[in-house]
Amino acid sequence: MTKDTEIPDLPTEITPQSKDFGRWYIDVVRRAELADYSPVKGCMVIRPYGYAIWELMQQGLDRRFKATGHVNAYFPLLIPESLLMKEAEHVEGFAPQVAWVTQGGNEVLEERLVIRPTSETIIGVMYAKWVQSWRDLPILINQWANVVRWEKVTRLFLRTTEFLWQEGHTAHETAEEAQEETMRMLGVYKEFAETELAMPVMDGQKTESEKFAGAERTYSIEALMRDGRALQAGTSHNLGQNFAKSYEIKFQARDKSVQFAHTTSWGVSTRLIGGVIMTHGDDGGLILPPKIAPYQVVIVPIPRGNWKETVLPKAQAIRDELVARGVRVMLDDRDSQTPGWKFNEWELRGVPLRLEIGPKDLEKSQVVLARRDTRVKAFVPMEGLTPHIEQLLATIQQALLDRALAYREEHTSQADSYEEFKAIMEGRPGFVISPWCGSATCEAEIKTETQATIRNIPFVSTDATGKVCLRCGAAATAHAWFAKSY
Amino acid sequence: MTKDTEIPDLPTEITPQSKDFGRWYIDVVRRAELADYSPVKGCMVIRPYGYAIWELMQQGLDRRFKATGHVNAYFPLLIPESLLMKEAEHVEGFAPQVAWVTQGGNEVLEERLVIRPTSETIIGVMYAKWVQSWRDLPILINQWANVVRWEKVTRLFLRTTEFLWQEGHTAHETAEEAQEETMRMLGVYKEFAETELAMPVMDGQKTESEKFAGAERTYSIEALMRDGRALQAGTSHNLGQNFAKSYEIKFQARDKSVQFAHTTSWGVSTRLIGGVIMTHGDDGGLILPPKIAPYQVVIVPIPRGNWKETVLPKAQAIRDELVARGVRVMLDDRDSQTPGWKFNEWELRGVPLRLEIGPKDLEKSQVVLARRDTRVKAFVPMEGLTPHIEQLLATIQQALLDRALAYREEHTSQADSYEEFKAIMEGRPGFVISPWCGSATCEAEIKTETQATIRNIPFVSTDATGKVCLRCGAAATAHAWFAKSY
Repeated sequence: MTKDTEIPDLPTEITPQSKDFGRWYIDVVRRAELADYSPVKGCMVIRPYGYAIWELMQQGLDRRFKATGHVNAYFPLLIPESLLMKEAEHVEGFAPQVAWVTQGGNEVLEERLVIRPTSETIIGVMYAKWVQSWRDLPILINQWANVVRWEKVTRLFLRTTEFLWQEGHTAHETAEEAQEETMRMLGVYKEFAETELAMPVMDGQKTESEKFAGAERTYSIEALMRDGRALQAGTSHNLGQNFAKSYEIKFQARDKSVQFAHTTSWGVSTRLIGGVIMTHGDDGGLILPPKIAPYQVVIVPIPRGNWKETVLPKAQAIRDELVARGVRVMLDDRDSQTPGWKFNEWELRGVPLRLEIGPKDLEKSQVVLARRDTRVKAFVPMEGLTPHIEQLLATIQQALLDRALAYREEHTSQADSYEEFKAIMEGRPGFVISPWCGSATCEAEIKTETQATIRNIPFVSTDATGKVCLRCGAAATAHAWFAKSY
Repeated sequence: MTKDTEIPDLPTEITPQSKDFGRWYIDVVRRAELADYSPVKGCMVIRPYGYAIWELMQQGLDRRFKATGHVNAYFPLLIPESLLMKEAEHVEGFAPQVAWVTQGGNEVLEERLVIRPTSETIIGVMYAKWVQSWRDLPILINQWANVVRWEKVTRLFLRTTEFLWQEGHTAHETAEEAQEETMRMLGVYKEFAETELAMPVMDGQKTESEKFAGAERTYSIEALMRDGRALQAGTSHNLGQNFAKSYEIKFQARDKSVQFAHTTSWGVSTRLIGGVIMTHGDDGGLILPPKIAPYQVVIVPIPRGNWKETVLPKAQAIRDELVARGVRVMLDDRDSQTPGWKFNEWELRGVPLRLEIGPKDLEKSQVVLARRDTRVKAFVPMEGLTPHIEQLLATIQQALLDRALAYREEHTSQADSYEEFKAIMEGRPGFVISPWCGSATCEAEIKTETQATIRNIPFVSTDATGKVCLRCGAAATAHAWFAKSY
């Protein structure tokens, strides 16, 4: 076993975005100690700093799920082959990318098991047991779990063989309720992404060829990364009665007839961490929105003279006051490193605000505050420091969202002709809205020819009447958002 | 696929403990909707009510881990066979009970993977990458995860093929620090079990034959269930340099020499839920300690007259005031069920306190409070109700611990002779402390002959000088705690 030695050493420098955005991304992920490669092909290790971001995301999401009436539960990791096979479209979509368990202890299994790639099947069977009457509905359950999908090409956080996610699975009495739930959770994702991650997203409906295997309708939120590529950041599926029929989730309705339930599922994953990195980061490394930053403020004392008797106690007092207000603070009082090294290190790790304090600042009863996003430094009086910092963190959160929105606006265009479209995709990519005839053939050809895919069909579209499809020239049925994507 | 139909229907009645304790346990778990069987052999579904208990346990533990300097991270689910094989004792202990992944998608794997039964191996490889110098130590990481161990006989929560747990993995510069950490975390477990779960535990050291595969020393906490059997409720292992040597976790020491790290690991699992059920429950069902009860108070309005205009608003106001104070409240205002049905249902689900309020109570400005543990009912004035309830919840928490302590005391005895020992194990079992010679042979024979195992060797033992081994009559080296166990 020498695979461990195959894990390359951590990069010492961060490749500039302009030189190689993909390299920049991996350098940041590894150098900021968010995640690392593992001895298992395609699987990553989420390191404590990266996991702390995930914990903050989980809290923000879990609070929203519970506020909308959902509860958490836990279903088995392993799914019998015969169970996976029951929903025809679903198995077609997932069978090629599951991991198979064929032996338990010394015993070869009679029936193979898959490691869940998603849990509609195993949850469907349980709901069938639990639902008897319309009174048992709705069921509104979420699960925090790991899933495995056998991927050929992987990239830390964005696409890994194993990843962490949440998957909501709900069952309803009527088609209307299921559709409402599907849209409600898409809305929760959008609001969460924008409020907590400062990551603006386009919401809309997936095309037939991009929808979830077994779904009636799939909706998604799509974010724009700083290389002009889109990232699917969350999906919400109306599964109609497909899974209810395959797994027999049926109930006695109010009129005493037996009906199949209408189900939904929706999920976001650790991929969101990749989205945050590529939405906000720069050549200095990570830039974290305050709401999901493990440390919102790093305090760096300047070690001059008898600083341990003078500066350090004051730095500790500032830390304690901030912590008491719920601010997440790192006081970096290590002797082994210089202030310059620390400035660089915490910039690289994306801490939104740096507080410097030295003997001179003490004399003047001030500190230096340096923003990670703008790199602006300012002297700030000690008096009223805590509320000032709280305000500044809110300002940074908003500034990051505004900057990301401005970036998206600059990289969003309309193209009615294919020449125009291709020119954009070859040049400075981004979102392009174009008229489309609705045919999967055109969609596939556009993908082959330009690498761009339909990210989604916007809910509110400019009228497509009189327009013709970008690709084939037939009458357009809708405008669609196109982009190259992750 | 008809396995789902093999899941039996939920029990309608709870078997009395005195009739069949094992049946009582399963009835409570399923009827209170804590967990259910699944279509996957040996794997359970943790239902929302059970999962809510686990979430509260997680919060209590996670807070304690962080307060003792630990951070969370996440390591891969899948471990290459060659990696598992590196620590000889470890593989001997775990290889017979792992699930093997042999195929990914359509590709048969060159090297088989195991689903982690525990993560020392994969974490060891990563620590070897991350640790270079004594300055990189200690590493204090915890992981919340699922693990799989192929079990022949399973029981909901107590022993399942897949279960949820936390596993702490730390690496240290010196043997002393590793031992301190091992004992610190055992202490955290003991304090947590007693404070949050009201579950008294014996702490001590495991014998050679009961220790973790690959550990130098294993320590455990052991709780006594209401059928007189012990439950191992948490373990903390000092792994010495065994894993550091197998996985090459080495570092440049302060004296510039190259040294192997000293590592520890420690874990508790969803098994704790089983422990709580069997520590506190009675023939009426579950009794939950307030600190981990998803609902600490259930409010049942008595539906007389125009109760929806009179009683219900008051019930809602009481709920809102309690919730504002952080009390977890269920207001059961369902029309479809009678108060009597609700009383029974919430008793079965172990809610510590029931609040009844009807038109007459409104007139008298009072409510009825019924304790689940003692079943005592009392009229309590509306004035000062919230602080009264907060106080009462604290009282119930303490009363449950006291009752469990008293039960343990009644079921703990000393036996110096084997006849005495066997009589106890055949009659009313419990913990028995007896002198032992330290030989694994005697330990094994005692187990064969009486089903009792050594749970652990107490830290503070009465002097064994002059005593002889229970089984062989040779000089005793220590007193040991014996019990039949889960």
